[in-house]
Amino acid sequence: MTSILVIGAAGMVGRKLVDALIARQHLRGTELSKLTLVDVVEPDVPTDAPCPVSAIACDFSAEGTAEKLISDRPDVIFHLAAIVSGESESDYDKGYRINLDGSRHLFEAIRKAGDNYCPRVVYTSSIAVFGAPFPDPIPDDFHLTPLTSYGTQKAIGEMLLADLTRRGMMDGIGIRLPTIVVRPGKANLAASSFFSGIIREPLNGQEAILPVDDDVLHWMASPRSAVAFLIHAAELDGEAIGPRRNLTMPGVAATVAEEIEALRKIGGEARVKLIRREPNEIIQRIVGGWPRRFDAARATSLGFKADSSFEAIVRTYIEEEGISV
Amino acid sequence: MTSILVIGAAGMVGRKLVDALIARQHLRGTELSKLTLVDVVEPDVPTDAPCPVSAIACDFSAEGTAEKLISDRPDVIFHLAAIVSGESESDYDKGYRINLDGSRHLFEAIRKAGDNYCPRVVYTSSIAVFGAPFPDPIPDDFHLTPLTSYGTQKAIGEMLLADLTRRGMMDGIGIRLPTIVVRPGKANLAASSFFSGIIREPLNGQEAILPVDDDVLHWMASPRSAVAFLIHAAELDGEAIGPRRNLTMPGVAATVAEEIEALRKIGGEARVKLIRREPNEIIQRIVGGWPRRFDAARATSLGFKADSSFEAIVRTYIEEEGISV
Repeated sequence: MTSILVIGAAGMVGRKLVDALIARQHLRGTELSKLTLVDVVEPDVPTDAPCPVSAIACDFSAEGTAEKLISDRPDVIFHLAAIVSGESESDYDKGYRINLDGSRHLFEAIRKAGDNYCPRVVYTSSIAVFGAPFPDPIPDDFHLTPLTSYGTQKAIGEMLLADLTRRGMMDGIGIRLPTIVVRPGKANLAASSFFSGIIREPLNGQEAILPVDDDVLHWMASPRSAVAFLIHAAELDGEAIGPRRNLTMPGVAATVAEEIEALRKIGGEARVKLIRREPNEIIQRIVGGWPRRFDAARATSLGFKADSSFEAIVRTYIEEEGISV
Repeated sequence: MTSILVIGAAGMVGRKLVDALIARQHLRGTELSKLTLVDVVEPDVPTDAPCPVSAIACDFSAEGTAEKLISDRPDVIFHLAAIVSGESESDYDKGYRINLDGSRHLFEAIRKAGDNYCPRVVYTSSIAVFGAPFPDPIPDDFHLTPLTSYGTQKAIGEMLLADLTRRGMMDGIGIRLPTIVVRPGKANLAASSFFSGIIREPLNGQEAILPVDDDVLHWMASPRSAVAFLIHAAELDGEAIGPRRNLTMPGVAATVAEEIEALRKIGGEARVKLIRREPNEIIQRIVGGWPRRFDAARATSLGFKADSSFEAIVRTYIEEEGISV
């Protein structure tokens, strides 16, 4: 029996992870025994779970909270909670408090739990741990020089996770997620929002703004792949990973032009016409500092699988969100 | 006028740095106005200083201490304080408290000081931020995968320094020091101790133990070079460095055989005979996981200079310590 704690369970990826866990009913070879869902807002409790589910609204970074969250010793902890890139940049204190101190409190609570408690901790890191200038493709052993506070905080979390795991104090794996595309719902204020928007909005019959050139290349994965990465990381043999516990996830490198071509093929020319080019120098500059393509050889050799193409990413979105085309 | 704070001033490199600052009487183009020396034991106050010197014994990592240390707004801060590798591994809490929390408290005190206070902070990092397996040579953009808690703590300090500097909250430069050879004084318990010992002990007419094979290659710098790195880092134009504020220092890659050859040339065959080979598998294994040779291209292009040869390192030791050969 496997008990699971999901921190950050109310977010887009968190909700899809919970749905996937419930659908498969098992993890690490045994049935689910308990699912504890945590977020800053109370996560929805699914009604079709094969085991007891509890939902907790709390600030997981607050003093003493991590100790409570692990008090019944979950076997697997998915740590997805984070202040996103933009807010970590605009609110220095909040970003460091949640993304660094929160992760550290969690890891320290595990270390101090006693009873040889050593759960598998799956930590969502980000390709933001890398900073330009980049080689193309970026190899697995490229150095971590984040250019944002968010990337810095994620990189520090990776280091703590690796050290505590090396010392046998927990069993962590960090996975650096590509940009998740196509995000369902509304556009947000992230500079990366348009990578989803130019697919999502036209498929819903709405206009989308394209602020960058058609030749911009980006590294992406579907929400379904992100969930598959998390579950694979939870089940992976720790011995096989070795001491380098943080892995760049495989993705699809596609240009904006290739995105548009996939939209044309799936949704037709009329939808492509809903994309309006409105160049934005600020966004162009931000996106220019992001990683574009990785040689995610280690993750691939450990069995993590990318989406097969950008077209496949769009078809996944259509299928998961029930869009008619 | 330049005021200077040295944290970790009672250590071997700290003392030599203070001597060098006093000898040159200026830094960053202006005369020294004040020198504040801090360590966990009270640093010696030099009598020949061209400016007021104060010595403070304190735990710089304790709550509120960093704020006091920077209360008179030193222009340059040398942060050399650290729990060494071995002790950081054996005492988890102490290592994290001093090496991580101590550095973070210092950086946060600077950030919160107000009045646009933005001192140059020279942070001593270490080649321990890297972990095997390595390419040979190790390039400037090799990833940080420390295999010790000490290396983890140093790497986290580097990340915090880079982020706060990027945000204009301080003006930091991190320098990754090679192993410092020849260390004066007695052998210590560090696994690297023999790299100094096989030179120092024979030059003093004493037997030295060599626990590894003659073909072991290592990356080294003299104490004099380490001091020159620190001073150069204090004076370097921040614009020239760019956003990657942590630099691997140039060193001399020499094998144990080359060390012995330098000893023979300088001290004669009789002294070489004082080296006793006593292979130690544990030390051989530890040393095998250490970096051996770097392509320190960035630091070199920024004007940091390595010792010219291992022989020059030995001659520096003889000169600085007044050894007769």
